[in-house]
Amino acid sequence: MSAIEPSEGVVLVSGGMDSCVACAWALAQGWRVRVLHVTYGQRTAERELRAFHDIANHFGIEPERRLVASIAYLSAIGGSSLTDLTMEVEHADLDRKGIPTSYVPFRNAHLLAIAVSWCEAVGATNIVIGAVHEDSSGYPDCRPEYYAAFNELLRVGTVDGVLRVHTPLIHMRKSEIIRMGMSLHAPLHLTWSCYRNTDVACGNCDSCALRLRGFAEAGAKDPIPYLTDSRAADRPRSHNPQ
Amino acid sequence: MSAIEPSEGVVLVSGGMDSCVACAWALAQGWRVRVLHVTYGQRTAERELRAFHDIANHFGIEPERRLVASIAYLSAIGGSSLTDLTMEVEHADLDRKGIPTSYVPFRNAHLLAIAVSWCEAVGATNIVIGAVHEDSSGYPDCRPEYYAAFNELLRVGTVDGVLRVHTPLIHMRKSEIIRMGMSLHAPLHLTWSCYRNTDVACGNCDSCALRLRGFAEAGAKDPIPYLTDSRAADRPRSHNPQ
Repeated sequence: MSAIEPSEGVVLVSGGMDSCVACAWALAQGWRVRVLHVTYGQRTAERELRAFHDIANHFGIEPERRLVASIAYLSAIGGSSLTDLTMEVEHADLDRKGIPTSYVPFRNAHLLAIAVSWCEAVGATNIVIGAVHEDSSGYPDCRPEYYAAFNELLRVGTVDGVLRVHTPLIHMRKSEIIRMGMSLHAPLHLTWSCYRNTDVACGNCDSCALRLRGFAEAGAKDPIPYLTDSRAADRPRSHNPQ
Repeated sequence: MSAIEPSEGVVLVSGGMDSCVACAWALAQGWRVRVLHVTYGQRTAERELRAFHDIANHFGIEPERRLVASIAYLSAIGGSSLTDLTMEVEHADLDRKGIPTSYVPFRNAHLLAIAVSWCEAVGATNIVIGAVHEDSSGYPDCRPEYYAAFNELLRVGTVDGVLRVHTPLIHMRKSEIIRMGMSLHAPLHLTWSCYRNTDVACGNCDSCALRLRGFAEAGAKDPIPYLTDSRAADRPRSHNPQ
């Protein structure tokens, strides 16, 4: 990975914490940044899109350098509790073996393919994705070897073969990502992680549990409220309170 | 590539001749076939979708085993004369060096990613794509090494790593594909190849020129009419007669 290069980069920004930190990292490389948000009919799509624009506004990324793409066909395919609304989102079990029901099969390949096509059209040569291996929920497309294989695909499958995917967070624990985000002044208060709710984070889906554990290990306070907080006790219940 | 295996296969069917022959090949393997059509805001989208359903009907593939997915975001990205309606489709030059304007950057990765997600959701283990290297227009994602790299991505990026992409036509010339199609009784008369028109094929875009040359080399008559045919002289002009 080249550290500093005055070039264009496309950052995948889901609205969650990892991609927000990845965006701050890309800006810190001196790259001129574009941001890509992909919506796929997930439960919390609107809330994540709001977080995407909040983060882009915070970083001063112009509207013409943002792309929102829908891969709603993933809902028709099903197979994940994030897109199939008849499946219940599991409660967190960070010691669970195997793939959780929230796994969207091969999802990151869709996101990366869109980023690649955009890069090829505008002449950008870097893609940044906030994928995390260690602290992930076991998704196969968060493994370092997956990104090595994807970069080989880029080498042989693009016109000039110079485009590369960067995964600056891949070997970090969530607590390290949080510390990096704080040191880069990433707007973690604008991010959204919860897989289940859209108003107040549930605090007990996999994604909330990983986030809360990360802040605890980082010795920091998560700036967003949770249903399980005493602060949240007098808030209305979420629309999806399973 | 395993030759005969009683398993499920997803075939990418664009509505063109190559994918029609690839579908016939998949059925000849004894696989239970699903068909996937991806539309991406290309000029001839409706005509290709009609060809997809005509081919699926011919092969007796039930509606619930067909999937039509839109990746219309490629139109917003632009960069190809197939999706950017302000760019003119080039006249054929089969000896042209470099990538023609009809190239949609990294398009096949989008198609394959959708096929992979569908396979993972339904338990299919084979994907078939009618990509052609020799006779292609120089697209980087039609090279054999591209599919080798994609299969490596599948090995590391899917849950059980057994899914494989098959490219039965990759080393064939167009004339060989036509002969294979005829021997497998593929309904070539239902296919659509023209990049420019939707009523009568123009006969002089890259795709028409490759097809016509293929039939000539195969010593066969293309069953579809062309604007440049004497048969087509009294037909109305196309909607896109550039």
